[in-house]
Amino acid sequence: MPFDAVVATSLENVYYLSGAFILTQRIIPARLAFVLWPNAGAPVLGLCTIEESLARTESKIEDIRGYTEFKTTPIQLLADVLREKGLHSAQVGIEMSHLPVAYVEELRNELPGLALTDCGPFLETQRMVKSQREARILRDAARRTDDAIWDSFQRAGPGKTEIEISAEMQGMLLGTKAQAIAFCVIGTGRRASMAHPLPTRRVMKSGDLIRTDFGGTFDGYYSDIARTAVAGKATPRQRDTYARLWSVHHDLLEFIRPGIMARDVFHRCRALFEQTGLNFRMPHVGHSLGIGLHEYPMLAPHVDQVLVPGMILAIEPMHIEEHGQRYHLEDLVEVTERGRRMLTSPDRWSKLVEGRAAWAQPSARKRAGGVG
Amino acid sequence: MPFDAVVATSLENVYYLSGAFILTQRIIPARLAFVLWPNAGAPVLGLCTIEESLARTESKIEDIRGYTEFKTTPIQLLADVLREKGLHSAQVGIEMSHLPVAYVEELRNELPGLALTDCGPFLETQRMVKSQREARILRDAARRTDDAIWDSFQRAGPGKTEIEISAEMQGMLLGTKAQAIAFCVIGTGRRASMAHPLPTRRVMKSGDLIRTDFGGTFDGYYSDIARTAVAGKATPRQRDTYARLWSVHHDLLEFIRPGIMARDVFHRCRALFEQTGLNFRMPHVGHSLGIGLHEYPMLAPHVDQVLVPGMILAIEPMHIEEHGQRYHLEDLVEVTERGRRMLTSPDRWSKLVEGRAAWAQPSARKRAGGVG
Repeated sequence: MPFDAVVATSLENVYYLSGAFILTQRIIPARLAFVLWPNAGAPVLGLCTIEESLARTESKIEDIRGYTEFKTTPIQLLADVLREKGLHSAQVGIEMSHLPVAYVEELRNELPGLALTDCGPFLETQRMVKSQREARILRDAARRTDDAIWDSFQRAGPGKTEIEISAEMQGMLLGTKAQAIAFCVIGTGRRASMAHPLPTRRVMKSGDLIRTDFGGTFDGYYSDIARTAVAGKATPRQRDTYARLWSVHHDLLEFIRPGIMARDVFHRCRALFEQTGLNFRMPHVGHSLGIGLHEYPMLAPHVDQVLVPGMILAIEPMHIEEHGQRYHLEDLVEVTERGRRMLTSPDRWSKLVEGRAAWAQPSARKRAGGVG
Repeated sequence: MPFDAVVATSLENVYYLSGAFILTQRIIPARLAFVLWPNAGAPVLGLCTIEESLARTESKIEDIRGYTEFKTTPIQLLADVLREKGLHSAQVGIEMSHLPVAYVEELRNELPGLALTDCGPFLETQRMVKSQREARILRDAARRTDDAIWDSFQRAGPGKTEIEISAEMQGMLLGTKAQAIAFCVIGTGRRASMAHPLPTRRVMKSGDLIRTDFGGTFDGYYSDIARTAVAGKATPRQRDTYARLWSVHHDLLEFIRPGIMARDVFHRCRALFEQTGLNFRMPHVGHSLGIGLHEYPMLAPHVDQVLVPGMILAIEPMHIEEHGQRYHLEDLVEVTERGRRMLTSPDRWSKLVEGRAAWAQPSARKRAGGVG
């Protein structure tokens, strides 16, 4: 690698390199953890003493060092380890798009001889092709998430609130292998025009558009699926718009194969939108995913990354109506030697789902234990 | 304020200053959003065009500017606005413990005349006393979270898996006003010795310690409560250890009042641990909370912040046994003019809860619809 050592500090890279999933890296970002990986010699995992017991169980890295919060700073610990390894004036890669400037200034003060460069793109490239284990987790996560949305959206009819649909979807995903819900975006009616609305107590009316963008974490890996449906009865115009987005989405999924560029997917999507008379306003049309939600490569213009087997991609075209309503589909696909493998079941979504009210659906009554 | 302008970039401060809760600030950190708040003149909210529709609905800031991802960088937009406002060589406060170094270097290249200082502590101090609206949200969040744990832990008995308890707790919290689960730490048996384990399929045995640290987000504000119980029958030693931690916790909650220092709470806790013969190993014994999970002031040594009415604090003593098992209690308390107001109901936890198996509990059978 083009560094004497790499210092990873994001949850994504610390988990990838060490095997220790340290939840507080996301919810208490001030509690910095790092992996110092030298070009020669053994790696070190450094973290707050509070997290040591978990790290000692989960980490593949044997050399674990703790700092006591509010007594020693994480950078003092890092500087000590760099000195100990003779790396006090080495070429060290840090995650420049992750590490807050205050830590970098502290490190520069501690070790003025260090030459710091950005190892972010290097680590992103390492993570872009998934191992067999990673692919198994991501496939399972995708299937479970897709099923939870499908089941809930059958009953996402008039009279229900956004929070009720959202609780149902999340409840279905939990209790399976999901360790956590990562995000549960739900917007109905006017709120379906926003990109990432959180659910409210808004009660759906018949004809309301319902859009979700939903994901869990499974062994630290994300799922991420978007669906659009209608509460109760759709209008012919809603059905037509959806059908057009569906045909674009279907063609775009068929287009995924090894050897094309990430940017080709973006340009192909734009061409399909134009052919179909839909509004193309997206800065990207999808992304890779794994421990991170948006991983390299993004399916965006100018991304000159060839798609290779083992990548797992979210393909997510979105059409925004003149009045702001959004139609959004997002499916997960694995690039394989021979083409692609769908991790979700998009075909059952080929027609616009018209969600029935819970009380109008016999199977829901049965599930609730025969009431009525 | 001691700056010509402040540039807030963390979700916490962008939400606090603008009223727009931009979920992707947490899950897609590369999608930077900022609030530029000049000492004189109107503030500006800058964000990725994808998030504009939500911001236009929720933001109190009227001047909203979008950048198109992968085409313009957020820093280019920020630099443009700074130039437009005549702030191209001003004293600008940035969140140095949040903003990644790559953005700061880009900003320094764009506007070499800027004098950048840290506005993080200034903004933390602004947020430390909660408004009436914030307190209402936090009180409601605390009560609902506490109830969800209480109900689930009654049935957290032998035969259940960690994922089952966790799904039950999360399911109860969702469907109420919770917009999302923030974290759901569950550890039983050996895993109760870790600080932040995620739930697994481990099946509990009678006598296993169960520890949770659980929180949701409500209108963007956190709840955060920790409880310890036992699956099935506790040993006399478990009951005794819990009773000692409980008495420390009770005395520490009684100690909270306006006029004392944050560090006094830490030192008081240490003294109580020593009196009671428990192991004191915590770098802090609690924290303020709000839009952030760990807000200023931390209840840690050397924190010279006087407690004042309107602060909301998490008090969380933890005892770690020689063999690593953790006993942990965390309750939420509001500092008031006359003393304190509990936001949770700690008293019902005064004796170690011994969770019964679901099949052993008549009320659980009733709830499941009369099966058996």
